[in-house]
Amino acid sequence: MSHKLHIGKLCIIGVGLIGGSVARALRECNCVDSIVGAGRQLENLKRAEDLGVIDAYSLDLAKAVEDADIVLVAVPLGAMQRVFEQIKPHLSSHTIVTDVGSAKQSVMAAAENVFGELPATFVPGHPIAGTEKSGVEASVAELFRHRRVILTPHAKTDKMALAKVRQLWQACGAQVMEMEAVHHDAVLAATSHLPHMLAYALVDTLARMDDSQEIFDYAAGGFRDFTRIASSDPVMWHDICLANREQLVKVMRAFSDDLHRLCDAMEQGDGEFLKTTFTRAKNARDKFCG
Amino acid sequence: MSHKLHIGKLCIIGVGLIGGSVARALRECNCVDSIVGAGRQLENLKRAEDLGVIDAYSLDLAKAVEDADIVLVAVPLGAMQRVFEQIKPHLSSHTIVTDVGSAKQSVMAAAENVFGELPATFVPGHPIAGTEKSGVEASVAELFRHRRVILTPHAKTDKMALAKVRQLWQACGAQVMEMEAVHHDAVLAATSHLPHMLAYALVDTLARMDDSQEIFDYAAGGFRDFTRIASSDPVMWHDICLANREQLVKVMRAFSDDLHRLCDAMEQGDGEFLKTTFTRAKNARDKFCG
Repeated sequence: MSHKLHIGKLCIIGVGLIGGSVARALRECNCVDSIVGAGRQLENLKRAEDLGVIDAYSLDLAKAVEDADIVLVAVPLGAMQRVFEQIKPHLSSHTIVTDVGSAKQSVMAAAENVFGELPATFVPGHPIAGTEKSGVEASVAELFRHRRVILTPHAKTDKMALAKVRQLWQACGAQVMEMEAVHHDAVLAATSHLPHMLAYALVDTLARMDDSQEIFDYAAGGFRDFTRIASSDPVMWHDICLANREQLVKVMRAFSDDLHRLCDAMEQGDGEFLKTTFTRAKNARDKFCG
Repeated sequence: MSHKLHIGKLCIIGVGLIGGSVARALRECNCVDSIVGAGRQLENLKRAEDLGVIDAYSLDLAKAVEDADIVLVAVPLGAMQRVFEQIKPHLSSHTIVTDVGSAKQSVMAAAENVFGELPATFVPGHPIAGTEKSGVEASVAELFRHRRVILTPHAKTDKMALAKVRQLWQACGAQVMEMEAVHHDAVLAATSHLPHMLAYALVDTLARMDDSQEIFDYAAGGFRDFTRIASSDPVMWHDICLANREQLVKVMRAFSDDLHRLCDAMEQGDGEFLKTTFTRAKNARDKFCG
């Protein structure tokens, strides 16, 4: 078994920031013969072809996946099941299917709904990379370099399929790890989905105030950094919230309780509690984020 | 009346990030004859003198404020009243006193406690600038350039004193505005104090989880930006929380309600509510923060 990745035909369904960046990265390392993009927006696919991100495109998913060695599904979480339904009749038995969804249990449930059981050739994945930007114009070959990709294989996942998807991400410069889907969803709820909710809710809270123009005028540099992720794509985050709602609601309600505890401490003048909390947080931040 | 600022002797009590940066900025524009630093930490004052930030220093506040034209009090909020008490007997009638506290009502209350009424020569102020770093080593002359400084003069504030403090900040490159103290405290609670509480609480929530090491390992780039302000000085933020607790608790509890509303929407599958909220936030963020 060669460790050098070679893909004959790669089909990328959803050529946006993530799909486009995978295409650019694999093209750069010359490990794919042809990349066919697919999706619902003709303009976007044309743009991707013009940018040299993909070799060809099709609005017809049946054609797009035909003879593909790997199908990478990089559509919003809310569109996963529909895509699975459309490609199901056209997949050959050896075609590997993988995805990039930010919540894994929901994607796996969608696949189960469509295929009856999780196909051995289906390798669920999630690259922990991205920016607040979206669209193929924002795609770059370096997006995954030194970033983590989490694969959440299931009991019946084919070992060769898993190895191939692992190689694909390694070729993009990523560090690949495996995890149970439920654990992935809990970890991402805490580290990514919760912060996005806080940023969205903060900006929205301020925007709804009477003097919001003035409010934003007085926001200092820290505010800009803090709220950058509130510029993320609302539809994508709507999908993530609904897909990972169980884990996200749990961590959000716990966080809200923590806020009330801080308020209680302020009202009771419990300075020790405040100092202890802030010091513990500062130490953790300095230790983990350098 | 000349528009060119000239200060004979400037006394800076508390030569940290803010006090040190004011000293550096005023030195750069040659508008001060001598800068005397004061404080409680000998090592820090020595370091400030070694760095050329101040000309001289004294641990004795009586000596430090003697013959000063302006006394800039740049100590943590919790130390303001003590400093006012110590300098009160040694201030001449023409010495202007100003401060840099992040909450204004509490500083003005402290001054009232000490002086009986707010002195005409007292000009409360707050530069909206800073980083998550602290200490004189982090001070830079450019810290206030193009930043806002809010002055919250009271009914009896002397017009000449106000003009002089305004000039001081303009000489540092800042844009100076005036505001009622209560309004200042409400605006800052929303735009600065609340985000700091969210960042501290988020990092602390994650740090207290069983698998915190792993949790932080999977945090992506957005998390780093989002939590940068959780590296801020815990004692300073303890002081701010207690000083501005009324406004801060109000906006924190309202924010917590907003989080619960988002959770409710997720549990009810109310996608429209999520999309509307995220879109409104994204539009506000893109509009106000560019």
